[in-house]
Amino acid sequence: MTQPPAHPPIALARWGSFHVGGHETRVASEPPREVLFTPGSAPARLDPNGTYLVGGMYAQFMVPEPRRGAMPLLLWHGGGLTGACWETTPDGREGWQHFFLRRGWEVVLTDAVERGRAGWTRIPEETGGTAVTLTLENPWARFRIGPGTPQDGRVFDGQQFPADPASWRNFIRQCVPRFTTTDDLTLAAYGALLDRVGPSVVVAHSQGGFFAWRAAQEWPGTVRALVLVEPASTGVMEKVAALAGIPVLMIYGDYIEDDLRWPAIRARGLAFAEAVRAAGGHVDVVDLPARGIRGNSHMIQMDRNSDEVAALVQGWLVARELWR
Amino acid sequence: MTQPPAHPPIALARWGSFHVGGHETRVASEPPREVLFTPGSAPARLDPNGTYLVGGMYAQFMVPEPRRGAMPLLLWHGGGLTGACWETTPDGREGWQHFFLRRGWEVVLTDAVERGRAGWTRIPEETGGTAVTLTLENPWARFRIGPGTPQDGRVFDGQQFPADPASWRNFIRQCVPRFTTTDDLTLAAYGALLDRVGPSVVVAHSQGGFFAWRAAQEWPGTVRALVLVEPASTGVMEKVAALAGIPVLMIYGDYIEDDLRWPAIRARGLAFAEAVRAAGGHVDVVDLPARGIRGNSHMIQMDRNSDEVAALVQGWLVARELWR
Repeated sequence: MTQPPAHPPIALARWGSFHVGGHETRVASEPPREVLFTPGSAPARLDPNGTYLVGGMYAQFMVPEPRRGAMPLLLWHGGGLTGACWETTPDGREGWQHFFLRRGWEVVLTDAVERGRAGWTRIPEETGGTAVTLTLENPWARFRIGPGTPQDGRVFDGQQFPADPASWRNFIRQCVPRFTTTDDLTLAAYGALLDRVGPSVVVAHSQGGFFAWRAAQEWPGTVRALVLVEPASTGVMEKVAALAGIPVLMIYGDYIEDDLRWPAIRARGLAFAEAVRAAGGHVDVVDLPARGIRGNSHMIQMDRNSDEVAALVQGWLVARELWR
Repeated sequence: MTQPPAHPPIALARWGSFHVGGHETRVASEPPREVLFTPGSAPARLDPNGTYLVGGMYAQFMVPEPRRGAMPLLLWHGGGLTGACWETTPDGREGWQHFFLRRGWEVVLTDAVERGRAGWTRIPEETGGTAVTLTLENPWARFRIGPGTPQDGRVFDGQQFPADPASWRNFIRQCVPRFTTTDDLTLAAYGALLDRVGPSVVVAHSQGGFFAWRAAQEWPGTVRALVLVEPASTGVMEKVAALAGIPVLMIYGDYIEDDLRWPAIRARGLAFAEAVRAAGGHVDVVDLPARGIRGNSHMIQMDRNSDEVAALVQGWLVARELWR
């Protein structure tokens, strides 16, 4: 923790966190049990019956000074991840949280329902499902790092993800168990977040894109712009008209054509973008390789050129007059 | 998010996060399954066999400028909680993270193994046990807020915890499921943190005190001072000599005498403090009511007078010459 600062200091006017959203559920008729929480403490009687708060989420805000973003910029993580994916990169560089704070945006990171500091109280009892936990090996191919495994270490030509063994382990350590049955709770919690924060720019990655599209459709007066980084899914086709007033930027990385899943996911994204345009909306699609930006994995905000892509996002936001 | 700042801005030289600790474990011979991670995405084949990283933890650092603390100040949360318990209080005030940053300390918050952004990969498969999840009602009496339930709302005379219904719900929403079988993993991860951060002051609450005592005994050259806020347990009696060179401050709140569990927990803490002194160590014990500071619950860092107690800690650190 003693390396010299690579960047100038930043002034924060305010920073902090809160939990938001969720609902009450009641449990009755389960047997009490005795729990020794800590060795050397005293046993406590734990009655599991009562009221639980389920489906809340965690938000962490930092407000720089001076402030140049017209409104808060919300960073929504992908599945199996938390807000930490926008902080320091796995190889120790400043992340997108830093990038946008340094440009005067109020930045709000979140841990969505069931993940990170949101906690998974009464999930899966309320939602069903079992947690999916990733091996060290699993995302290597799925996130388009290389053809084999992290142990063999071969990466795609020009790969920008910091795929050295130490950085890969740092990345895997930040992955958290994931349920696939919490989408309704999560969308509701994002809505509660938007109600609390007010008009915002939403920058969403992967599964976060699924929630961002739908949140924009449900809260179109609050989501003022959408930046979707490799969104895993689309909005609802029947509500496409709600997106007419919300400018959208979609960004895709490299190595998609040879992937098993991403050609189909991207094609559906582009078809949805076309439908939004037909409904009077504005959608820009950036395939990074077509701009000469090569080597990006699915984890664009962690890739070595993460600042270059962030600068592209910043330029787009400036052009939308959301920054002054 | 538009209320005026109640405090002046702060300058950060650096901030960010990392994961640390944990070990590899291998799983074989489990059947693969197909997972549709996001509706409208493409199904993925998930092979649960392979290498998992288990028992890592999350750390989040902020380095103010100018820096006046002699070394980083690590804030270790209690059981069922995360690093968020040191951030904004449930009623929206600045927490101890803010207090110590504003006094020039580098502050490191952590989410210990299995909790928050640490994730619970292969817990409980590795450790056994089932998660304990708290009701809205449970900690009301156990954390010494009032005699009944949050629904009846009666609090102990002079109670400092912000126990209005909205704040109590904010507090409960930050509680996360908790295993009671992860102590060994957690202590090892705290050790990895200490190895990475280097000489530090450890400020620990409740269950965090159990880990702090033991970490100080295992890494006595790295833990340079201990501040234990209602520690739930003690160190190991056989290793009491390791604590001789580490000044310790223990703090207890109000309403202990009439509690079911805290008289015994505090008595064991005081007996251990006596043993440390007998081994040549320095332990100060502060019962807040004896200092005229009344009304503190178990969640001292969230109580309305949290800054007053933080100032007492700061004074003690200054007297130890750990701040300049």
